[in-house]
Amino acid sequence: MLNYQLDKTFAALADPTRRAMVERLVQGPATVSELARPLPMSLPAAMLHLKVLEESGLVTSQKVGRVRTCRIDPKMLSQAESWVSERRQMWARSLDRLGAFLDQPEDEA
Amino acid sequence: MLNYQLDKTFAALADPTRRAMVERLVQGPATVSELARPLPMSLPAAMLHLKVLEESGLVTSQKVGRVRTCRIDPKMLSQAESWVSERRQMWARSLDRLGAFLDQPEDEA
Repeated sequence: MLNYQLDKTFAALADPTRRAMVERLVQGPATVSELARPLPMSLPAAMLHLKVLEESGLVTSQKVGRVRTCRIDPKMLSQAESWVSERRQMWARSLDRLGAFLDQPEDEA
Repeated sequence: MLNYQLDKTFAALADPTRRAMVERLVQGPATVSELARPLPMSLPAAMLHLKVLEESGLVTSQKVGRVRTCRIDPKMLSQAESWVSERRQMWARSLDRLGAFLDQPEDEA
């Protein structure tokens, strides 16, 4: 389940338009028009990107009357952060172990 | 440039096979066969995934004789980590600002 969610989250982040929408939404909620306005594309094209973000779980939206408001759901942002951060730390630790091994006097190594 | 690299890095991470390869490589370098062996797919299929990881900059490889050895290039892992981590922190700060605003006495708000 987590694996599948991470697939969707990383795929959603693999596009500059969708990252621009996330950049906007981490500042606070925004309507669909507010999200689409600065983008060099039509509203329907922007809405397709938004759909990918919603399906990934990074963004939720709620419609009140005719206005749909979008906001970040921080859970998947945290899960993506943890995955990458833990792997980078594992890599750093394996480098430390290699360094410690190479520092051993030759008769111990 | 960074934008394009992030596209490739997040796209590379959006697949469980490629994340499994990264999981293996953060432990230390591995040959292509060592990477492919635990995976439920043919060697050529595994090599296609490896190619995506190399094109993203997450992994580099070097061939000596008949053996190709792969290792993590930590730069793109760090860049992906920073991007997600900074956005999560921006989101947390905007939530704090909202909290502070809502905590104000009514005549100040």
